[in-house]
Order: sequence, then structure tokens, then C-alpha cells
Amino acid sequence: MKHGKFITLEGGEGAGKTTLIQGLTHALADRDIDVVVTREPGGTPGAELLRDLLLNGEVERWSSRTEALLMYAARVDHVERRIKPALSRGAWVLCDRFADSTRAYQGVAGGLEPAELADLQRFALGDFSADMTLIVDLDPEIGLKRTLQRGEKITRFEKFDTSYHRRLRQAFLDIASEDPERCVVLDGTQSQADVLAAAIAAVDARLTVGT
Amino acid sequence: MKHGKFITLEGGEGAGKTTLIQGLTHALADRDIDVVVTREPGGTPGAELLRDLLLNGEVERWSSRTEALLMYAARVDHVERRIKPALSRGAWVLCDRFADSTRAYQGVAGGLEPAELADLQRFALGDFSADMTLIVDLDPEIGLKRTLQRGEKITRFEKFDTSYHRRLRQAFLDIASEDPERCVVLDGTQSQADVLAAAIAAVDARLTVGT
Ligand SMILES: Nc1ncnc2c1ncn2[C@@H]1O[C@H](COP(=O)(O)OP(=O)(O)OP(=O)(O)O)[C@@H](O)[C@H]1O
Ligand SMILES: Nc1ncnc2c1ncn2[C@@H]1O[C@H](COP(=O)(O)OP(=O)(O)OP(=O)(O)O)[C@@H](O)[C@H]1O
Ligand SMILES: [Mg+2]
Ligand SMILES: [Mg+2]
Repeated sequence: MKHGKFITLEGGEGAGKTTLIQGLTHALADRDIDVVVTREPGGTPGAELLRDLLLNGEVERWSSRTEALLMYAARVDHVERRIKPALSRGAWVLCDRFADSTRAYQGVAGGLEPAELADLQRFALGDFSADMTLIVDLDPEIGLKRTLQRGEKITRFEKFDTSYHRRLRQAFLDIASEDPERCVVLDGTQSQADVLAAAIAAVDARLTVGT
Repeated sequence: MKHGKFITLEGGEGAGKTTLIQGLTHALADRDIDVVVTREPGGTPGAELLRDLLLNGEVERWSSRTEALLMYAARVDHVERRIKPALSRGAWVLCDRFADSTRAYQGVAGGLEPAELADLQRFALGDFSADMTLIVDLDPEIGLKRTLQRGEKITRFEKFDTSYHRRLRQAFLDIASEDPERCVVLDGTQSQADVLAAAIAAVDARLTVGT
């Protein structure tokens, strides 16, 4: 079924995911690749409604377990209605956060067991997964400073404490070590141009148009 | 942990669940039992928001898989924040629909496999389950007629076709045969007083205060 490539971007708050996705979109479009840019939670009308419920309100609004179920509800809508159809017509889909964020946020930082989350992921996605995952790694203190400078409204997850965000960073690095075929870690302290160049080099080394 | 009793009411649209729960509440309160009446999806502020997303809109709004995840998100919030605390303080909780409705609606009628839903339920609830389930059985044509006479707004599930509702009815009967220790089937064609009397007899036969 799948003809295009599915690339996910992961990492902590303010690490540079959204910035990198913009650079990648231009670089791939210059090669005449049909690129679809999307994000999680969200990406479809139904999932964007769930995004509002997940990102707004107080830290205690949902438990980690409820949160994981809501994230996967949004993800299934997104995969079924937007990502798979785009891949089928041959587009490359760049997705700002995906299943690894649930493993990191609700799993490691939120206290759910990896085996439990694997059950949930199997129910929701079967064997569907990213062809490649770019993990932007950055000290969370620097990332949070960047997002504050961005001057946007603070989301629920940014309200969690520093140790939560340190566990998150380590969680993404552990995911990368466990699945080195799929994941590439990028050093987020580099300039935007250097992060982009490293990402393009990784894409070229691992994914080829049409294979 | 659990001191009270957890009784769930199940069955198709208009079978008489809400009517029966009202009668049961009075009967138990007359025995000086602390009774908490609640319903699914819903029962907590977070879950009631999800209820709106689930019951309003068009039939195609969510796939069965997304729907099952949303139902369980609402259920976990409800169990963690309302049902378990009430049971811990010794109350009896009467819940209008619970996990069997997901097995019937999203599972049998919606095409999800029992084993898949078992994975999801294990993630969400662990081994928490009802002490007793009263299934009100009624021909769905009669049930739908009753709900139309009630004159309320039609929900998403009432818009599904007749064969869907026939599969639902059979699904509840199958659940009852598979788990006869927990489930009691009540004939919904009886008068309200007779349905209530049968329910009370079943409760008395199976549950005793303080055990
Ligand atoms: N390599 C970089 N060096 C310095 N600043 C950067 C770099 N990449 C992005 N930024 C800036 O840091 C801020 C956060 O970047 P961005 O929004 O891309 O992060 P993000 O990972 O998408 O954050 P969030 O998790 O909040 O979505 C932005 O203001 C962006 O311009
Ligand atoms: N045993 C009965 N005989 C005849 N009518 C009944 C009986 N029980 C309930 N009704 C009537 O049928 C209608 C539906 O009953 P009720 O609301 O209790 O069903 P329900 O199973 O809760 O429906 P829903 O699935 O829509 O919540 C109501 O108008 C109620 O008064
Ligand atoms: Mg971003
Ligand atoms: Mg009712």
C-alpha cells in the first residue's frame, strides 16, 4: 500500500522540531517530492479537537493513562484519515511528534510501563510505524528558554517541572539506542542550518525516493 | 481496597437501563446503602467533555477504533476519579453502561476483534471490573420506538442502521453467556415494576452487603 515515506520529528519542548521541519519541507520540495507537513496531537479536524483537550488546562487535568488513550485516539484518526492516504498517493509525510512522544511523555516521564504502552500501540496502529525518526536532542533548560522567547502561550506540558523534562530527554535518547535503524539523534545546540544539513544527510543516507 | 459494590447496567438503546437504575437506587437507599449513580461515557467533568465528542455529530465522525480509544479515555478518568473513590468509602456504584458497551458497540457491531479490545481493556483498567452486570434485553425496534417517544435529540449511535442494532443485542447476550457469574439478563418487555423486581432478586441472590 505504502509508496511515500513517513518521517517523524521528536524531542523535548523548544528543541527545534518545528524549525527543522520547515527547512526539510523546502529541501524535499526542491527535489520535486510531494511533501505533507503535519503534527501531533492533531492533523485532522477530530484530532485537533483532542489537541485542545490535551494541551490546555492544568497539569492534573488528565492522568498519564487517560492522556495516553487520548493521544492514541487522536493518532488513529490522523493515521487513518490523513497520513495513510497521503503515503498511498506517494507523498512524503513529515510529522511533528508521533508515537515516541507518547512513550517519552506518558511512558517514561508519566510512569506507564513500556509493555503496557506496547499493548496500546498494537491496538491502535498494528504494525504501522515511521520509516525514519529524527530526534532533536537539547538540554531542556535551553529548550524551555527558547519557547519562552517565542512568546507563545504556555501549554500544559511546559508546566511540568525540570526533572520531568530531564527524564523526557533521556527517554528520547533511550528510544534512539533501542531502535538505531529507525532513529537518528541530531545535536540541537547546532545552528539551524547545521541541524538541517545533518537531517538531510541522514535522510539521504537512509531513504531513497522510490524504494 | 474495594468495600462497596460496582453494578453496571447494559443493553441497547431504549431497553430501559436508565429507568431501572432509578428504581434500583430507591430500593438500595431504602436499605441505608450509600448509592452513587453514574453513567458512561461521562461521570466526571473530563469524561463528560468526551461524551459530547462521542455522542454528537455524524455516524462517520470517528472510526470504531478511534471511538474505542475515546471511550476508554473517558472510562479511565471516570474509574480513577469517581468510581474507585466511591467504592473505597463503601458506596455502591450503579453505572449506566460500562465496558460491555464498548465490546458490543465498537467490538461486535463496529468490527474490532475481541482479543484487540481485551488488550485495550487491560491497558486501561487492569483487572478492575464490575461485581455484577444487569443486561436489559429488548428487541431493538421496540427500544428505538421508546426512545423516539421520549422525544429527545437523536444521538450518533441511534443513527446507525437496524442490522447494527440487531448485532448489538446479540453481542450483549453473548457477553452474558460467556460470563454468567457476573451477568444477569433481564427481559425488557416486562413492565417497569417487573424488571425492577427481577433486578432486585438478582442483586439479593448474588451480592450481600459487607461481603
Ligand atoms: N538550532 C537552533 N538554534 C537556536 N534557536 C533555535 C534553533 N532551532 C530553533 N530555534 C528557535 O527556538 C525556538 C523553538 O524552536 P521550535 O519551535 O522549532 O522548537 P520545537 O521543538 O518545535 O518546540 P515545541 O516543542 O514547543 O513545539 C524558536 O524560537 C526557534 O526559532
Ligand atoms: N419496562 C418498560 N416498559 C415500557 N416502557 C419502558 C420500560 N422501561 C422504560 N420504558 C420507557 O422507555 C423509554 C426508554 O427507557 P430508558 O430511558 O430507561 O432506556 P435506556 O435503556 O436508558 O435508553 P438509552 O439507551 O437511550 O439511554 C423511556 O421513555 C421509558 O419510560
Ligand atoms: Mg514545535
Ligand atoms: Mg439511558
